[in-house]
Amino acid sequence: MATTNRQFVLGKRPEGTPDRDTFELEEIEVPEPEYGEVLVRTLSLSVDPYMRGRMDEAESYAESWQVGEPMEGAVVGEVVESEHEAWSAGAFVTGNLTWSEYATAHGDRLSPVEPGENLGLEAHLGVLGMPGRTAYFGTRDVLDPYPGDTVVVSGAAGAVGSTVGQIAKLAGTRVVGFAGSEEKVRYLEEDLGFDVGINYTETDDYREALDEAAPDGVDRYFDNVGGPISDAVFTRLNVDATVAVCGQIDTYNATEAPTGPRKLPMVIAPRATVQGFLVFDYEPRFPQATEHLREWVEAGDIEHRETVVEGFENAPDAFLGLFSGDNIGKQVVKVAEPDS
Amino acid sequence: MATTNRQFVLGKRPEGTPDRDTFELEEIEVPEPEYGEVLVRTLSLSVDPYMRGRMDEAESYAESWQVGEPMEGAVVGEVVESEHEAWSAGAFVTGNLTWSEYATAHGDRLSPVEPGENLGLEAHLGVLGMPGRTAYFGTRDVLDPYPGDTVVVSGAAGAVGSTVGQIAKLAGTRVVGFAGSEEKVRYLEEDLGFDVGINYTETDDYREALDEAAPDGVDRYFDNVGGPISDAVFTRLNVDATVAVCGQIDTYNATEAPTGPRKLPMVIAPRATVQGFLVFDYEPRFPQATEHLREWVEAGDIEHRETVVEGFENAPDAFLGLFSGDNIGKQVVKVAEPDS
Repeated sequence: MATTNRQFVLGKRPEGTPDRDTFELEEIEVPEPEYGEVLVRTLSLSVDPYMRGRMDEAESYAESWQVGEPMEGAVVGEVVESEHEAWSAGAFVTGNLTWSEYATAHGDRLSPVEPGENLGLEAHLGVLGMPGRTAYFGTRDVLDPYPGDTVVVSGAAGAVGSTVGQIAKLAGTRVVGFAGSEEKVRYLEEDLGFDVGINYTETDDYREALDEAAPDGVDRYFDNVGGPISDAVFTRLNVDATVAVCGQIDTYNATEAPTGPRKLPMVIAPRATVQGFLVFDYEPRFPQATEHLREWVEAGDIEHRETVVEGFENAPDAFLGLFSGDNIGKQVVKVAEPDS
Repeated sequence: MATTNRQFVLGKRPEGTPDRDTFELEEIEVPEPEYGEVLVRTLSLSVDPYMRGRMDEAESYAESWQVGEPMEGAVVGEVVESEHEAWSAGAFVTGNLTWSEYATAHGDRLSPVEPGENLGLEAHLGVLGMPGRTAYFGTRDVLDPYPGDTVVVSGAAGAVGSTVGQIAKLAGTRVVGFAGSEEKVRYLEEDLGFDVGINYTETDDYREALDEAAPDGVDRYFDNVGGPISDAVFTRLNVDATVAVCGQIDTYNATEAPTGPRKLPMVIAPRATVQGFLVFDYEPRFPQATEHLREWVEAGDIEHRETVVEGFENAPDAFLGLFSGDNIGKQVVKVAEPDS
C-alpha cells in the first residue's frame, strides 16, 4: 500500500502565458475511499488546451480552478481499493480526477478501460477520450462534410485535429491540415492520409498556401487555433461553407482582447455558417462515439499517436508544451506503470 | 410621349466613401420597346446599401457595375408602351431597371404593383420589396426566434431592421434595436413597438447599454451594421444564440481590411451559430413573403415608412445618405407622379 502521494494545485492564476509558477506540487496523504468510492492510482494524466480557461477567474464553460485547490483532468488509472460494487482492485478505469498520483472518486463517475487492437491505455485519453469524441461530433454533426468537399483543419496534428482529418477522409473529402513543423506535416500526409499538410511556420502567406492546397476553395473548416490561419481560411470559403469553432488556442494566453481582420463581412457572400460547439453537449451519445472510434482504430482506419512526458512532476511541462506545439497527437503524462 | 430621358451611370469607382463624382448624369434617348418589352416611366427608385458593393471592381454576390454603364436597382413605374401581352399602358409595375427616367425591360421581368390598405407605391420598394423580404426570411428562417427570446437588431430604424424587429415582436420576443438618433429611437419605441431603442451616438459603452436593455442576454442578433455594435453584442450571447449576418454597412466604405476584436473565441462557450445569408436564395418563396407581409401591413400589424428624396437628379444624395443614416425606414427617390 502506497504511503506517499503528490498532487498539483493551482499555484497562482497566470497573466498571459502560464509558467511553472502556475503549478504548485504538494505532498499529501493517500486518500481513503469512503462508501461508494474507489481509490485510483494514476497511470496517465491528460493535459488539454481547454484547461487554460480553467486557470482564469472568469468562468467560461468549464468551472474555474481555485488557487490552492487541485487541478482536475482526465486520467487513466488502476483501482487500488474499492468501496463500490462495480469495481475491484486491479481494474483499469478512466475518469475526471485530480492531478495526483492517487485520488478517490465515486465509482459511478469512472468508466472501464477495455483493451483492444491498436489501443494502449493512453488512447483512452486521446482518440477514445474527450479529444476523439470532440473530433467525432465536431466532424459528423457540426462540419457534416459531403464527399468531394474540401475540408481544412487547423491544429491538424493535435489530438482533435488529427482525428477530424481522418474522419473527414473516411467521408470522401479532400483534407488540408495546418500544422507547425515539417515532422507534423509528414505525419499528416504520410501516416494519416491528409491530402496536403501546410507548415504554417514556413510561410506567412496562408492565402497563397491555401490556393495551392485547396484550389477549389474551402467547404468545411474545423478550427482549433484561430488567429492568422482562420483569417486566411475565411477569405477562401465557398458558398454554403461551414466553420466548426472547436478551439482558439492562438488566443488563450492573450492578455488583451485579441484583434484581427473582421470576419462578419466575409460570411455574407458565401452564406457561411459559423458554429461554436462543446463536446459536453453530446454526452448522451458518448457511447456511440466511443464505439465507432474504437471500430475505426481497431480496423486500422484511424491512426492515433500519443506524445508522452514521463513523470508526474513533469505534468506542468506537458501542459505548457501544448502552447508551443510540442505534441504530435495527444499529449499525456506517464505517471506510473500498471501493477497488474 | 416623352422626348427627354436621363440616366445615372457609374462615373468612377469610389475609393472608400462614394461622393457625387461616383455618379454621372447623362441625357439619353427614350428607348423603344422591342417585341416582348415594356417601356416604363420611373416613378420611384430604390437606393440600397448593397449597391455599394456593385461599385467595386471585385465581384461579390451582386454583379459589379461598370464605369460608364448605367446603375441598376429596384424601381416602381408606370407602363408607357407595351410590346408584351401581360402589360398595357397605365399599369403600375416594379422590377429591377436602370437608374433612369424611362427604361425598357422584358415584360416577364416585371411584377404588378397592387394597391392596398396602408400601401403607397413606394412600399413596393420597401416593406413589400427586397428589404421586406430580407427581413422576412432573415427573421423567420435564419433567426428563428422563440417566444421570450431577446432579439437585438442593428440598423433597427432602416428598411430591413425596422421590419425585422416588428416580425420578431409578432413572434413574442423582447426586441432591442440600435439606431443612430433620438428620433429613430422614438420611432422604434413609439411607432414600431420595440421594447428598447439604443441611440448608439449617445454612448460608447454598448455593453452597458445592452446590460440595461437586454438584462437576460441576447438570444438572437440580426446584424445589418457590424463594427463596434456587433463587438458588444457578441459579448452578450446566450447559449444557443443565433446571429443572422445580413449586412455590414459599417465596413462597406473601408479602404483597408477592417479590424476589430476577434469574435471566433466568443462563439464557443455559447455554442453560437453565425449565419450569413442572401435574400436571393429565397426567390422561390418570394410570393409567400410578399403575401404575408401585405397581410401584416394591411392589418396594421407592421408599420412601414419611406424617406423620400425628391427629384431624379438627387438619387446620388439619397444613396450617400444611407451611409450617414439620413433615412428612417426605406430610402427612395421620387422621380415622377403617376399620370393615371
